[in-house]
Amino acid sequence: MQGLMMERPLLVSSILEHASTIHHDQEVVTRTVEGPVHRYTYADLAQRSRRLAKALTALGIGRGDRVGTVAWNTHRHLELYFGVSGMGAVCHTLNPRLHPEQFAWIVNHAGDRLLFVDATFVKLVEAVADKLTTVERVVVMTDRANMPGTSLPDPLCYEDIVEAADDRFAWPALEEGAAAAMCYTSGTTGDPKGVVYSNRSIVLHAYGLSLPGALPVGERDALLPVVPQFHVLAWGFPYAVPMNGGKLVMPGPRLDGASLTELMAAEGVTVTAGVPTVWHGLLEHWRTSGERVPSLGRVVVGGSAAPRRMIEAFQETYGIAFIHAWGMTETSPLGTASYLKPADFDAEASARYDRQVKQGRPVFGVEARIVDEGGAPLPRDGVAFGELQVRGPWVCSGYHRLDVSPGHTADGWFATGDVATIDPDGYVQITDRKKDLIKSGGEWISSIDLEDLAMSHPDVQQAAVIGVPDPRWEERPLLIVVPVAGAEPDKKAIRAHLGERVAKWQVPDDVVFVESLPLGATGKVLKSRLRETYGGGAA
Amino acid sequence: MQGLMMERPLLVSSILEHASTIHHDQEVVTRTVEGPVHRYTYADLAQRSRRLAKALTALGIGRGDRVGTVAWNTHRHLELYFGVSGMGAVCHTLNPRLHPEQFAWIVNHAGDRLLFVDATFVKLVEAVADKLTTVERVVVMTDRANMPGTSLPDPLCYEDIVEAADDRFAWPALEEGAAAAMCYTSGTTGDPKGVVYSNRSIVLHAYGLSLPGALPVGERDALLPVVPQFHVLAWGFPYAVPMNGGKLVMPGPRLDGASLTELMAAEGVTVTAGVPTVWHGLLEHWRTSGERVPSLGRVVVGGSAAPRRMIEAFQETYGIAFIHAWGMTETSPLGTASYLKPADFDAEASARYDRQVKQGRPVFGVEARIVDEGGAPLPRDGVAFGELQVRGPWVCSGYHRLDVSPGHTADGWFATGDVATIDPDGYVQITDRKKDLIKSGGEWISSIDLEDLAMSHPDVQQAAVIGVPDPRWEERPLLIVVPVAGAEPDKKAIRAHLGERVAKWQVPDDVVFVESLPLGATGKVLKSRLRETYGGGAA
Repeated sequence: MQGLMMERPLLVSSILEHASTIHHDQEVVTRTVEGPVHRYTYADLAQRSRRLAKALTALGIGRGDRVGTVAWNTHRHLELYFGVSGMGAVCHTLNPRLHPEQFAWIVNHAGDRLLFVDATFVKLVEAVADKLTTVERVVVMTDRANMPGTSLPDPLCYEDIVEAADDRFAWPALEEGAAAAMCYTSGTTGDPKGVVYSNRSIVLHAYGLSLPGALPVGERDALLPVVPQFHVLAWGFPYAVPMNGGKLVMPGPRLDGASLTELMAAEGVTVTAGVPTVWHGLLEHWRTSGERVPSLGRVVVGGSAAPRRMIEAFQETYGIAFIHAWGMTETSPLGTASYLKPADFDAEASARYDRQVKQGRPVFGVEARIVDEGGAPLPRDGVAFGELQVRGPWVCSGYHRLDVSPGHTADGWFATGDVATIDPDGYVQITDRKKDLIKSGGEWISSIDLEDLAMSHPDVQQAAVIGVPDPRWEERPLLIVVPVAGAEPDKKAIRAHLGERVAKWQVPDDVVFVESLPLGATGKVLKSRLRETYGGGAA
Repeated sequence: MQGLMMERPLLVSSILEHASTIHHDQEVVTRTVEGPVHRYTYADLAQRSRRLAKALTALGIGRGDRVGTVAWNTHRHLELYFGVSGMGAVCHTLNPRLHPEQFAWIVNHAGDRLLFVDATFVKLVEAVADKLTTVERVVVMTDRANMPGTSLPDPLCYEDIVEAADDRFAWPALEEGAAAAMCYTSGTTGDPKGVVYSNRSIVLHAYGLSLPGALPVGERDALLPVVPQFHVLAWGFPYAVPMNGGKLVMPGPRLDGASLTELMAAEGVTVTAGVPTVWHGLLEHWRTSGERVPSLGRVVVGGSAAPRRMIEAFQETYGIAFIHAWGMTETSPLGTASYLKPADFDAEASARYDRQVKQGRPVFGVEARIVDEGGAPLPRDGVAFGELQVRGPWVCSGYHRLDVSPGHTADGWFATGDVATIDPDGYVQITDRKKDLIKSGGEWISSIDLEDLAMSHPDVQQAAVIGVPDPRWEERPLLIVVPVAGAEPDKKAIRAHLGERVAKWQVPDDVVFVESLPLGATGKVLKSRLRETYGGGAA
């Protein structure tokens, strides 16, 4: 027996229509690539997205066609999110920090017909132009007055095509499984893999993100996504925030601590989200400048585990709730959020932080389990660790143009490549990437645990731990440290600091001091690079 | 091009599994029909629901079979919600306040194979037993010690069948469109109509209910649904609250002000929901007893419009936010919620109340429009009024065993039968039921407006306005008043009170004083009964 409910599809366009009807006068504020602050409303965003869709139609774009974007977080990039997906095409966000070869490979693999490019990234596209086999036209995301000189053939100007179109465009009644957006994994090993989001998955993810125990952003909130729109759709906030009528504050290209502080304070930002590296910079700026953002109540961190010291700094020094979340390109990305159980929230600080350093509990819609090397489920006791596997309607089922996915199990789960524990209350703690775990004398050592402990030493700004080959123990941990500015840390003292906190055999045999750590295209420490540098014999 | 996301169905059982894993130790507290307070956790609820599903299987219940319930809000009724829907059968909640003839008609029309009945309602079922053509067995929802004597053949005892079953039952992977629950409209005109909820609609509705601008109930909340589980699935809270880990406090049969106050205070209830009649009783109890519920922060009202005076009383006297919502059996029910725009919330009291008396703005997932008598859309200007039409994935597309629905338009909207305005910010205000509007001298008069104004007179406890035939004006409004206890109101004074607030031709020609108003099975004033009584010539 079937239910008798309307078969209304879950569509990205319906989010925009809702926002422009019910929250028509809520603001979208952008620090533009050109410099000035731009502001308009959801009603404007909807109208301009319809004009863009009409312009795209005139350029020959139809259902299922891929439209690439190489752009910062701006109102124009939002228009592409809604205009492209709304008309039934596929908005493919590209990461401009990738190696140019890899960038070109991805554009070709996705089959992007158009590229929408911020002026900042025109040179990048020029450099690979002769390698792009599917791109027909490049649109520079600026107005006529700011069009850069370029060697690209027949570049279009974004404002010209949007202004030339009218807004008499009705969003089509798509099937909810239709592709809406694409994002490639950064592919530190092997070729990048294309994740294809559907209208359904984007809408369900936005519902999930908005639950009270996840990362809700309401009408009284103003969210600034530091996480780029080219990283997993800025974690879905560009959909969830309009869905609920919050204010969106887009930072454009300036993501340093001073610029973020200025924009957040000026616009009354209440929530922000990004990777730990960004929050390091922000805390450092606050410490040295004495500046603050009085309106800021919540900081969301994802992408990598945040050190305990960072959580403490935001909460103890600034009174700002710091919320761990975990996800991946393949999971849209929200998997878990560290909204604390009331009993944990009310616990004394030490017990509370023990829970807060974990990545949180699965949001309704995502199921999580850990398995051993043979694929058998492990106990949820907070001790057993194994590969984290997830499933749910916003978890990918495969990859674009890849017949067999290496990451999917026969029984329908996605194997994340992360190693984790799950405790009896459902809190997930990522102990490592599967490939970063260190195996020493038959025992596993978590690089993340050691890094977090190293960063609790006052002289350590950043830390990375890798395994290096050892003839006797197979691997031994090596600690690589960026010292705090002005500090002159001592190897012995740092090893002693760790020795008080972990078993003796887990203490790294050596410590290396460096000025900075190599970062990948998504802002994470590139351990593969560190292994290349130190793997041969530093231990 | 299709998205590449997992095809995980949205299922009622997944809510229970999430609650019992992530919120395993959250409490479900019930004032039982037998008397004592019962408490257990979501883990217990899940385990007992599986046992129930196994017991139902043993009784021959399979996919799509209807299982009727005649019950108060209790943990056992929750087990039926999850056990019956989870196994793929259809949980059909029956309203015991219906006329027995109508009750029997509905059971037969739905084809219920089993009836689960609270001891309170065994007599009702006995009275119609010989008219029930599809029911094979009756299960009394109590334990062996409390089994009532009954003339029903072979009655089963709920606790016996649940205890006899084990919990080794895996929820089947249903198709998300599969029917999960049923509820009949009260059918004040014509036969009752069966609305059939799907797994998909119930899950999406729970997501919608949980949005920051709707009626979110989080892990720190404790919700007491005064609205019965036999009214539109207790407005969806039995799904949304476990989804988010809130505490559920089920009031059983005692819904008077004193009992509610006692239970809410004892269990730290923070949110409650029900029809205006219930809140009249609660306010009256608080006024006369001086009792309070210190933990209570929000009161949700639906089913009928709440008078301004009631909103003011909760907010001004008790500091409790009072939230209007609108919906119907056909809309699962959430259509709109009166979460205020920040600017309205911060406005001075009079402007704020002007917005709060409206039923609120559509929740994401529901679209609303008003149309004229020819079906053409009317402007959203807060002035034009016409029939309210809605659509969305949790709005019904038709009715059980009814080939043609009178309430559905050719272009895919559900015509609600309510007359409303929509203002530029999207606030919907119900001005009347279509059939209750009064047409006088070619102009429309809203009965709800007059009732609200009448209730702002200090001597008026409750008011109802109906149209009575008039040879000259076609219809004229008649005001029927229940005076405040001890008051001796004066017709002339009340008419003068209205005359200061509405146009002269809208003032009722006569006022009738009564001890009480006739209420229908869902607690709403039965205007059809009033028209029978006064329609002939009271004017």
